[in-house]
Amino acid sequence: MTAVPERPVITFLSDYGLRDEFVGVCHGVIATICPGARVIDVSHGIPRHDVRAGALVLQATLPYLPVGVHLAIVDPDVGAERRAVALRLADDRLLVGPDNGLLSLAAVAGGVVEAVDIAHSEFRLEPVSATFHGRDIFAPVAARLACGTPIALAGEPCDPDELVRIELPRHRVEDGAVVAHVLQVDRFGNLGLDVEHQDLPGLGLKLGHGVAIETASGDSLPALYVRTFADVGRGELLLYEDSYRRMAIGVSHGDAAGRLAIAAGDELRIRSGGATGE
Amino acid sequence: MTAVPERPVITFLSDYGLRDEFVGVCHGVIATICPGARVIDVSHGIPRHDVRAGALVLQATLPYLPVGVHLAIVDPDVGAERRAVALRLADDRLLVGPDNGLLSLAAVAGGVVEAVDIAHSEFRLEPVSATFHGRDIFAPVAARLACGTPIALAGEPCDPDELVRIELPRHRVEDGAVVAHVLQVDRFGNLGLDVEHQDLPGLGLKLGHGVAIETASGDSLPALYVRTFADVGRGELLLYEDSYRRMAIGVSHGDAAGRLAIAAGDELRIRSGGATGE
Amino acid sequence: MTAVPERPVITFLSDYGLRDEFVGVCHGVIATICPGARVIDVSHGIPRHDVRAGALVLQATLPYLPVGVHLAIVDPDVGAERRAVALRLADDRLLVGPDNGLLSLAAVAGGVVEAVDIAHSEFRLEPVSATFHGRDIFAPVAARLACGTPIALAGEPCDPDELVRIELPRHRVEDGAVVAHVLQVDRFGNLGLDVEHQDLPGLGLKLGHGVAIETASGDSLPALYVRTFADVGRGELLLYEDSYRRMAIGVSHGDAAGRLAIAAGDELRIRSGGATGE
Repeated sequence: MTAVPERPVITFLSDYGLRDEFVGVCHGVIATICPGARVIDVSHGIPRHDVRAGALVLQATLPYLPVGVHLAIVDPDVGAERRAVALRLADDRLLVGPDNGLLSLAAVAGGVVEAVDIAHSEFRLEPVSATFHGRDIFAPVAARLACGTPIALAGEPCDPDELVRIELPRHRVEDGAVVAHVLQVDRFGNLGLDVEHQDLPGLGLKLGHGVAIETASGDSLPALYVRTFADVGRGELLLYEDSYRRMAIGVSHGDAAGRLAIAAGDELRIRSGGATGE
Repeated sequence: MTAVPERPVITFLSDYGLRDEFVGVCHGVIATICPGARVIDVSHGIPRHDVRAGALVLQATLPYLPVGVHLAIVDPDVGAERRAVALRLADDRLLVGPDNGLLSLAAVAGGVVEAVDIAHSEFRLEPVSATFHGRDIFAPVAARLACGTPIALAGEPCDPDELVRIELPRHRVEDGAVVAHVLQVDRFGNLGLDVEHQDLPGLGLKLGHGVAIETASGDSLPALYVRTFADVGRGELLLYEDSYRRMAIGVSHGDAAGRLAIAAGDELRIRSGGATGE
Repeated sequence: MTAVPERPVITFLSDYGLRDEFVGVCHGVIATICPGARVIDVSHGIPRHDVRAGALVLQATLPYLPVGVHLAIVDPDVGAERRAVALRLADDRLLVGPDNGLLSLAAVAGGVVEAVDIAHSEFRLEPVSATFHGRDIFAPVAARLACGTPIALAGEPCDPDELVRIELPRHRVEDGAVVAHVLQVDRFGNLGLDVEHQDLPGLGLKLGHGVAIETASGDSLPALYVRTFADVGRGELLLYEDSYRRMAIGVSHGDAAGRLAIAAGDELRIRSGGATGE
């Protein structure tokens, strides 16, 4: 038996939003089962049903969160036959959520050393509703784990290799342009791309130089590849490395998603040597 | 004197929203008065001034919240002559809020054993503003109660039978149809109705069969009465029992309120044997 | 060395919004560095990049928050040469944020007794990103201060007199009218003005009497100068003293910003003896 952690932490990410009481009820359930647990809300603003966006945020934020139980719920198929799982990673972080790929980016990065199917966990709240497994399955299991219950007691063991994984798009180089995809759009309209710091060598992009950003609709807009927003004028487009070391496109004091009329999932081309740099 | 609870909990529900600092200031007041209290935000997204919506959420969520002080503020008549009250229920939960019906559904369900009028409580923050009683009256009183002050010291005793109650609409059966009302619309556009699990026998609805949903504008749309969203195709209407055991209408991966052009308070008819089931 | 406070408090105000994970990540960083710190979210709904709005909210809310570390981030020039600072006030409150005026109203009101530049603090998270100093500089420094590290160790001493200050507009009296500016608009559409309780004598406004509110577009609307919303009819305009003892304009059960087609920063005229009072 694991000892009860002195100050257990549960982090919580979902697409529940904060308008309704879904998040608050899960907090209530956790506080009832494990009164000493501290809950950190990572984000409840994942776009509805967007498993990929949730998986990306979970993976990106995990290194900044204390080791604990990491509850994640984006669950478009709640009530259907998808599994519900709890996973233990090599660094002792525990992930709890639906087995629909939401946990997979963080799980692959961290290495799953133990997995259990919690769909029929004895820690569920009865009667289990058909539509709110956050309250009835995920939060109660997360709370029990936070209070020290070993993961093996939370459900039936399952094979980590059989967990659902999601595939991310991959940028490619074509006709001298980087063809990238918008993975995420944040509140400020900044566009996170599927190009990472480690991909940069060989893409032909030069810090401080101009690029052209071409959208699917045929527009081509000049931008500067710089370190940060302050390096361009107000209202100007920039290509930069975001705080997760991914390439991103923004507008200083503006909204790049609106300017480019572009959304998550869309493709765009980045060509070095655009008009701004001429 | 009651002993100070070791880990007192205050739950907090309001229509303050999270854009402004109203909620944060109440947290600050509570932490100043009762530093050990833990505050659980149930929801601050109750539609502005919608006392009935607040009352429904308070009642529905209470069973999932730890026993504690349950602060609720939806207060369209702040500054007018409505009373402010603290109530003790039979299970020792304490409710704090305006006496405008907001607490009444939870209070009736739980049974009020003690009631005090806190409008002139000695625990108020002076000077009491005319517009922000959450900060100046409700939060300070809730904090004192959480820290163990007996409710009798928080104000003047009043008669539980004289508390303001709200009336909910009641579904009826008419011409072979269930005439129901939309009590709530959640973030996903799902419509909570005034038909509960216990009302189902005798309504003629058969799980797995089709129904027709008729709106006031004369539209009739086919739906399936099923257990959950996954039981219908993407974009299809369903009638289901929601997680509070109330009947609800949703659209799989969609927005029922938008589809039916319907809002809280509206009436609709459910007729069994609609087109989908033919 | 200061002793570690038993229950340290960090209050947190920003324009990060709650849709993205920015706030949650800062909570995670704080919990990792100072597990015992309690974080109170004052507001994350400051309009994007609106340093003045953030400064006003910080100043107005501080008296209602427990003494602690007060983290504030509205940082349009992140990555540029603006300083990052930690300030100690006369009452031992500690302010942490960018040196762009955001802290200045609270700092001037409280009196700065010690200031350090934390841009190169040894407590930063490395590598420091160019775009997310909340996570990499401000939150880690706030967490260290909350856990008892003296402010002098957090950075290089700097001169409090050289901190950036913001200037607020000042109402004036002109042609017998009070010419005021809208400092803030809250969620309910109420307009906070640059007229304070202490300014009232001499402005010619009489409680209970009518006023005319004239907008820049030439409209003149009747209102009543009253104590609170309940003192006027539903849908009527009122001039009142808000909960921070500033004059404000609202509409009972309505939206004054919409009614007057007015926004933060706009000017309006208040003339006593408007149509309502005639």
